[in-house]
Amino acid sequence: MTKGSLFIISGPSGTGKGTVCSELVKNDNIFLSISATTRDRRVGEIDGVSYFYLTVQEFEKRIKDDLMLEYASYNGNYYGTPKEAVTKMLSEGKNVILEIDAQGALKVKEKMPEAVLIFIVPPSIKELKKRLLERGRESIEEIEARIQRAKWEFMQCPKYNYVLVNDNLNKCVNDTLEIINTTNEKQALIENLLKDI
Amino acid sequence: MTKGSLFIISGPSGTGKGTVCSELVKNDNIFLSISATTRDRRVGEIDGVSYFYLTVQEFEKRIKDDLMLEYASYNGNYYGTPKEAVTKMLSEGKNVILEIDAQGALKVKEKMPEAVLIFIVPPSIKELKKRLLERGRESIEEIEARIQRAKWEFMQCPKYNYVLVNDNLNKCVNDTLEIINTTNEKQALIENLLKDI
Repeated sequence: MTKGSLFIISGPSGTGKGTVCSELVKNDNIFLSISATTRDRRVGEIDGVSYFYLTVQEFEKRIKDDLMLEYASYNGNYYGTPKEAVTKMLSEGKNVILEIDAQGALKVKEKMPEAVLIFIVPPSIKELKKRLLERGRESIEEIEARIQRAKWEFMQCPKYNYVLVNDNLNKCVNDTLEIINTTNEKQALIENLLKDI
Repeated sequence: MTKGSLFIISGPSGTGKGTVCSELVKNDNIFLSISATTRDRRVGEIDGVSYFYLTVQEFEKRIKDDLMLEYASYNGNYYGTPKEAVTKMLSEGKNVILEIDAQGALKVKEKMPEAVLIFIVPPSIKELKKRLLERGRESIEEIEARIQRAKWEFMQCPKYNYVLVNDNLNKCVNDTLEIINTTNEKQALIENLLKDI
């Protein structure tokens, strides 16, 4: 069986990458990796679906045992990608999506250089501010500060395999599907050539 | 000025990557990096055009001074990519092509993760053997051995940004030009977004 490929989707919040990922997993053979976290479970969240909820002790044991593909700490809580689930799905020939930030993405790319990095950007910073304001979770000052923090992420774009502009959800999803198909075809092509060597 | 991008073209010999590179540099703003070597200059080769010819002592001094982006030794001779020429061209907004093997390509990618790696493959191993035989430089046994050695290179393909099949020179050149344009556009897009942060 052809080995599946690993795709990492990043982008500042408000670019719609979460929605893109939800659409992608409606397709056969595309699966989202579930992150682990030590933060409290919120109302409506399901263990093993939204996140794997771990204690700090459990999380730190997994870091020590090298069971995390990448991890980071935000606001005193750990967030990370459990390695085993990802490698298992890949070995089953599945395409796996990680929705993680640029820092995590570049760490995974170091360990797995064959990972395909996709960065989703908004059509403009003005549009990004508008979307974040409409979401109504943060004040304009908080949004400005968030966008300032996103500057470093934008600067990592040249290290990504693909940069997609999300000005139309359907187009962005289709572009991502095309990247996944192209990657799978490339993999099949190489496997075919290797058979004859 | 928009910073130029670095493109690395690899592929087993007989895939026509040299011809692709010769076609690419006919375009404005695409430049080929000249490698350095300690091997003897052959008839018809020009210093600074075919290669930069260095003594072993000069080459090793440059390794020590970290002036080589990558280097390797084949048949007792050093071959490598001088760093300064590449970074100078990039800072001038030029697109730079390195035509190097997979080992060198992956070393450069480690140092410059924004480098775009393009692997050119033949349509089939049968066709590759045919092309190498027609070139008439090697016996079928030497060709078989060369293809065996190329196996590792093929296996590095998933780490490349793009894999192109060269079954038609014009198409392969145009596909490469499209990759260069897409990369430049992506760079310009991000620079524009960053201006507004």
